[in-house]
Amino acid sequence: MIGVAYEGEGLLRTTPVTAEPPGPGELQVAVAYCGLCGTDLHIAHGNMDARVKTPLVFGHEASGTVAAVGPGVEGWAVGDPLTVMPLLWDGTCAACLAGHQHICQNLTFVGIDSPGALQQRWNVPASIAVPLPADLSLRTAALVEPVAVAVHDVRRSELQVGDRAVVLGGGPIGVLIACVARHAGARVLVAEVDPGRRGLASALGFDVVDPATDDVPEFVEGWTGGTGADVVFEVSGAAAAARSTTALAKVRGTIVVVAIHAAAREIDLQRVFWRELRLLGARVYQRSDFERAIELLHGGVIPADELITGVVPLDGTPGAMADLSAGRAMKILVDVAGA
Amino acid sequence: MIGVAYEGEGLLRTTPVTAEPPGPGELQVAVAYCGLCGTDLHIAHGNMDARVKTPLVFGHEASGTVAAVGPGVEGWAVGDPLTVMPLLWDGTCAACLAGHQHICQNLTFVGIDSPGALQQRWNVPASIAVPLPADLSLRTAALVEPVAVAVHDVRRSELQVGDRAVVLGGGPIGVLIACVARHAGARVLVAEVDPGRRGLASALGFDVVDPATDDVPEFVEGWTGGTGADVVFEVSGAAAAARSTTALAKVRGTIVVVAIHAAAREIDLQRVFWRELRLLGARVYQRSDFERAIELLHGGVIPADELITGVVPLDGTPGAMADLSAGRAMKILVDVAGA
Repeated sequence: MIGVAYEGEGLLRTTPVTAEPPGPGELQVAVAYCGLCGTDLHIAHGNMDARVKTPLVFGHEASGTVAAVGPGVEGWAVGDPLTVMPLLWDGTCAACLAGHQHICQNLTFVGIDSPGALQQRWNVPASIAVPLPADLSLRTAALVEPVAVAVHDVRRSELQVGDRAVVLGGGPIGVLIACVARHAGARVLVAEVDPGRRGLASALGFDVVDPATDDVPEFVEGWTGGTGADVVFEVSGAAAAARSTTALAKVRGTIVVVAIHAAAREIDLQRVFWRELRLLGARVYQRSDFERAIELLHGGVIPADELITGVVPLDGTPGAMADLSAGRAMKILVDVAGA
Repeated sequence: MIGVAYEGEGLLRTTPVTAEPPGPGELQVAVAYCGLCGTDLHIAHGNMDARVKTPLVFGHEASGTVAAVGPGVEGWAVGDPLTVMPLLWDGTCAACLAGHQHICQNLTFVGIDSPGALQQRWNVPASIAVPLPADLSLRTAALVEPVAVAVHDVRRSELQVGDRAVVLGGGPIGVLIACVARHAGARVLVAEVDPGRRGLASALGFDVVDPATDDVPEFVEGWTGGTGADVVFEVSGAAAAARSTTALAKVRGTIVVVAIHAAAREIDLQRVFWRELRLLGARVYQRSDFERAIELLHGGVIPADELITGVVPLDGTPGAMADLSAGRAMKILVDVAGA
C-alpha cells in the first residue's frame, strides 16, 4: 500500500502505508479517487506549516468503498461505496452547543489536522462516512466535497428562485456555486480574468464578464436592469473583487464571503449602510449539504466531466500540484486505487 | 414666524418664515421641539453642500401639534400632538417594490432634501405624520426619531433575549441602541473613549470599556466567557472600531453597521469566513420602528432627561451646533415654539 505525504519545506513524497485494521467505531476505506484543492496547494507550498504535523498524508475530497468494518460499527458492509465529510468537532464549545458544529471553535479538519485520503487504506470514524448511491461513479463522487461547499454557500445566501447572482472567480468552487445557484432558480454571471476559465463558464451556459477589461459594476447595473444583484459570491480572494462587492449588490442584497482572504480588505461600509447590505461568511458544510451534493451529482446537475480536467496516479500528485498552481487545470483527481 | 436656515459656506441664520396654508394632503405643524443630530452638523459644516439646496431650513427630529389641516386630510384635528417620520419614497423603484421603501433608491429625506422642522410652522404630507399619545411630553417626543433609529438597528440585528451586545460608540445613538437592546433582553457593553459619555453610559447601568486604554477584544472575550458577542453595533464611525468588530463577534455573530464611514474600512474577511459572521447595514427606520419608539418613550424605557443635555431657543442653534461639534453635549433640543 502506498500514499502521498507532505514532508515539510514544500516536499511531497510517495510513501509506503501500512494498512492498520480499523479501530472501534471506525471504517477502513479503500480510497478510489481523491480530488486536489486550493487548501492542498497551501499545504504543499508550506503556507500551513505552522498548523500541520509532518509527515502528513493529506487529501480530503475522497470517494471509495468500505474495505473493513471496525468493532461496534453498524449499518456498513465491506464493499459499500462512500465519501467522507472531513470534519470532527468537539461537541462542547459554544459554537457546537449553538448548533454550528461544522465551525466548531476547536474543529479538526481531517486531511489537514489528521491523516487524509491520499493513501490506499484510510481509517475514518464511521460517524463522518456518508453513503453513496450504488450507481454513482466513484470518479464523479470525488466531487461531493467541493459540491457540498457550493451547496453550503448557496444555502447560506438564502438565494431565491428568480434571483440574479454574481460569482466573482471562475475556478472550481466558483463554477460549482454557479451550477448550484442556477439549479436553485437563479440566473448567474461569472466574473473571471482567466480566458480559459471564462470560456468554460460560458460553455456551461453562464453569463461571463472579464474584470480585467470590463467595468463589472457597470456591467451588473445593466445586467440587472439598474437594480443590482440579489446575491454576490466572493470566491476569488482578490482585494479588488472584495472591494467591488458592495457596488454590485442591490438594496438589501447579500454578499457571501467564500474565499480565504490573506489580509484585511477595504470594504465600503458607507454603501453597506446606505443599501442595508448583508455580508455573510460561509465556511465548509453541514451534513445536509453533503447529502444534497450527492443528490445533485447523482441527478446530473453538476457537469463533472467538464470540471475534471485530469486524473493522475498517486505518484503524479506533485506534477498535478504544479499544474494547479499554474492555473493549467480546473479539478484534478488522484486515482488512488489504480496507483 | 421664524426659522433657522443653512445658507451655504458653513453659515446658519435665523430667518423670517411665512406660514403658508397646508396644501392638499398636508398638515401644518406648529413645531414644539426639534433635536439636533450628526447629520445636521454635517449640513452646517458644509459637508453636504453637493446635496442640499440653500437656503435650507433643516431639522428632522420634531415634535409638535397640528396647526392647520389641509384639504382632503382625514383623521387629524387642530391641536393633535404629532411627530414626523421624515422619509418620502418614490414607490416605484426596485427597493420600494421589494418592500424596502425606507431605503428607496430615490429617497427624499425631509429636512435635508426638502424643508425641515427648524421653523415655527412646517407643512408636511399627512402620510408621514405619526400621532403621539396625549400624555407624552413634546420635549420627550422630540427623541422619537433617534429612538426609531435605535429600534431599527436592534430589530435588524435580530437580537435575542439573553444576548450579549457590544455597542462601539457611546454618543446619543449608541446609548439609545444600548437602551433598546437592554429592554429587548440583552446585556450591553458600551465602548467609548470620552470619559463623560462613558460615565453617562455607566450611570445608566451599562457595562463600559475604554478603547483608548483597554484591549476591547480581550475584554469582550472575558465578558462573554470566551464565546464572543452575539451582536456588535458599530456606531462610532472610526476605522479602528470597524476593524475590531470581527474580533468581537461570536461564531455566527452579527455586526450591525450603524455609523456613516467616510472612507472604505479594512475588514478582516478571513475572520468573517472563519466564524461565519454576518455584517448588516442598518439605515433610518420603518413606520413600525417609529411606532415602537413612541411606545418605548411613553413607557419610560428611554432615559430622556439624562440624554437631553440642553434646550436652546431657535437663535441658539449655532451655539448648540458648536457645543455638539466639541463633544460638550449629548442631545440638544431647539425650543422652536418658545423662540
